[in-house]
Amino acid sequence: MREVSIIGIGITKFGELWDKSLRQLGLETGLAAISDAGITSKDIDALYIGNMAAGSTLQQEHVSALMADYCGLASQNIPATRVEAASASGGLAVRQAYMAIAGGFIDIAVVGGAEKMTDVSDSESSYTVSMGSDEQWESKAGATFASLHAMMTQSHMAEYGTTREELSAVSEKNHFHASMNPMAQFPFAISAEAVSNSGMVSSPLRMLDCAPNSDGAAAIVLCATEKAKKYKKKSIKIIGSGQASDTLSLHHRKHLNQMPAIRMAAKRAFKSCGKKASDLDLIEIHDNFTISEIIALEEIGIFKRGKAAQSILKGETKLGGKIPINTSGGLKARGHAPGATGIAQVVEIVQQLRGEAGDRQVKNAKIGMVENHGGTAATAVVHILEGE
Amino acid sequence: MREVSIIGIGITKFGELWDKSLRQLGLETGLAAISDAGITSKDIDALYIGNMAAGSTLQQEHVSALMADYCGLASQNIPATRVEAASASGGLAVRQAYMAIAGGFIDIAVVGGAEKMTDVSDSESSYTVSMGSDEQWESKAGATFASLHAMMTQSHMAEYGTTREELSAVSEKNHFHASMNPMAQFPFAISAEAVSNSGMVSSPLRMLDCAPNSDGAAAIVLCATEKAKKYKKKSIKIIGSGQASDTLSLHHRKHLNQMPAIRMAAKRAFKSCGKKASDLDLIEIHDNFTISEIIALEEIGIFKRGKAAQSILKGETKLGGKIPINTSGGLKARGHAPGATGIAQVVEIVQQLRGEAGDRQVKNAKIGMVENHGGTAATAVVHILEGE
Repeated sequence: MREVSIIGIGITKFGELWDKSLRQLGLETGLAAISDAGITSKDIDALYIGNMAAGSTLQQEHVSALMADYCGLASQNIPATRVEAASASGGLAVRQAYMAIAGGFIDIAVVGGAEKMTDVSDSESSYTVSMGSDEQWESKAGATFASLHAMMTQSHMAEYGTTREELSAVSEKNHFHASMNPMAQFPFAISAEAVSNSGMVSSPLRMLDCAPNSDGAAAIVLCATEKAKKYKKKSIKIIGSGQASDTLSLHHRKHLNQMPAIRMAAKRAFKSCGKKASDLDLIEIHDNFTISEIIALEEIGIFKRGKAAQSILKGETKLGGKIPINTSGGLKARGHAPGATGIAQVVEIVQQLRGEAGDRQVKNAKIGMVENHGGTAATAVVHILEGE
Repeated sequence: MREVSIIGIGITKFGELWDKSLRQLGLETGLAAISDAGITSKDIDALYIGNMAAGSTLQQEHVSALMADYCGLASQNIPATRVEAASASGGLAVRQAYMAIAGGFIDIAVVGGAEKMTDVSDSESSYTVSMGSDEQWESKAGATFASLHAMMTQSHMAEYGTTREELSAVSEKNHFHASMNPMAQFPFAISAEAVSNSGMVSSPLRMLDCAPNSDGAAAIVLCATEKAKKYKKKSIKIIGSGQASDTLSLHHRKHLNQMPAIRMAAKRAFKSCGKKASDLDLIEIHDNFTISEIIALEEIGIFKRGKAAQSILKGETKLGGKIPINTSGGLKARGHAPGATGIAQVVEIVQQLRGEAGDRQVKNAKIGMVENHGGTAATAVVHILEGE
């Protein structure tokens, strides 16, 4: 199998982007990534799109052809593929493109993710997110996405003594990182006290434990490593890739406070490149809720089970700490636009490994991981990236 | 790249399956395909799902994890991927699995497609299909899916003199084939006169020019050819695969009566195996409307542009004719369940190449093609299959 590199990146600011349509967001980031890569549209062999919710929020399926059309790629009848796995749609699109290049089918692919979550009412937007959980046993039975994660939090607290203070530390840290990221939806610090005192959503999760439903887009250009130098001086290799599933509904699982799909996806990604948790310099974690960041760090093996929350509180995952997590601000503060999120995470790691992350730069960052999951981690996709 | 074979198939009868849920349909065909292949769940490396509309019709996204869950594959944390390209979702899922095996990532994949279109009202179901066209310029502007195809038909009639009689011959032929297919939604013959006299939907397209919106599911098992014999005596090779896009909206195109994405997908599939149109013994064509079958046959190169309709009227595409088209009954009479359709088409060709198609068996069938497209052919996926 061939090696695959990332040679271009593009991202919008995340937020309530009422002045931009889905197609505009896609076009904007696609062009930015193409320009960053130094390629022209004629160099592109395929397009992969991550999108969760355009069918529900815009009554638009078939977003792959839409994006090919608006990016001017339909004129060359480019193969365009949309993948969907709720909030893991972006990471899964990256993986499909990676496999197509590694397998020798194509040389260059653009992978884009875009989502418009705020053109509908807040309740519609929230319900749309719930469509990533089990319709029959969860969403239509009244279990919101926050309440499912609240149950996971309750279970983690009961078994490991995880505290309110520790949960708040996750959000505080991610906002601190976002204060140095101009593309973040919430580019400002907040205190742990503010998190602990914010309105209750589903006990024990409070408003500032929850990532927003954002508009936004991100795109990257993947290229067979053997041809990358032709376009870009400094490219970033995808050295590991892993994907796993779990039961869609929580009640089918053995443990409410574990996310085995993340464990397996990380294990498969590590195996594919011979690396281990201690080799990582930084990680972008899918912190749709504060509890998710805690559990994911335990599943990847950064901390022992039940020990991640204390380490976060001690500052070990903050910029300058043992292993910086979510230097972008994470889903909580960079924003969370489901189909775009997994690709925005890759953009952050690429910026870090290129040494272009400005004030939030992790010193001597060589190897980074991206962990992206959908639903209550019924799908998890993990990639490991290495700088030159 | 490795060769890939189909070692198992499963399909439901298509129709108004009000007694079965999406997950039941998926499970049923998945198990049938696994059983036909002679494998166990432990042999499966990945799951690929084609589904267009569960988000809209059932408020269920993340169908990949749902199917992994209900097929008992989540316990092994199997990578499960949903792809969507409107009615081409099934064919595109086949292509992703094909690439993953050919590229050496996995050995065995189950590819399933399922759709429930009749649990919502007819108008909702029709609007859902329209989500495969351009929301901004077509569906929300009032252009139904039938009216877009009616414009294509008008243009074809104006330029090539295509007649009402010729359109009706497509539907008559497909119903004749379906009368020999026990899994067809409409397993009975109809006369060309009945088609010509059926109610007007969007001039000149009448009710019996249009495929139904069906419930249904289909699944296949793909395996690296080098390992296929271990499981199945008689396997069918996928020798060619091609995919292409076009503008999502009709008004962006040069010709209303052409479908260049089909042309390019077929060209790429032919190129990948060194075959040509005259090598084909039979084809399953995506006849969502009668006009689509006519144009597709011209794009693939079976007939010259403007000549397909006359050849169909002469019986050249009927069982026993020069090249039998849609021996399953096609979308018109076998039924059309968007995410399942592209996989049901593969099931038909596999049955034919195995010599298991009963009364509708094409004699000495060696090489067959599957043409599956989405929207007004803004995505087209073509596969070429060869028997032993």
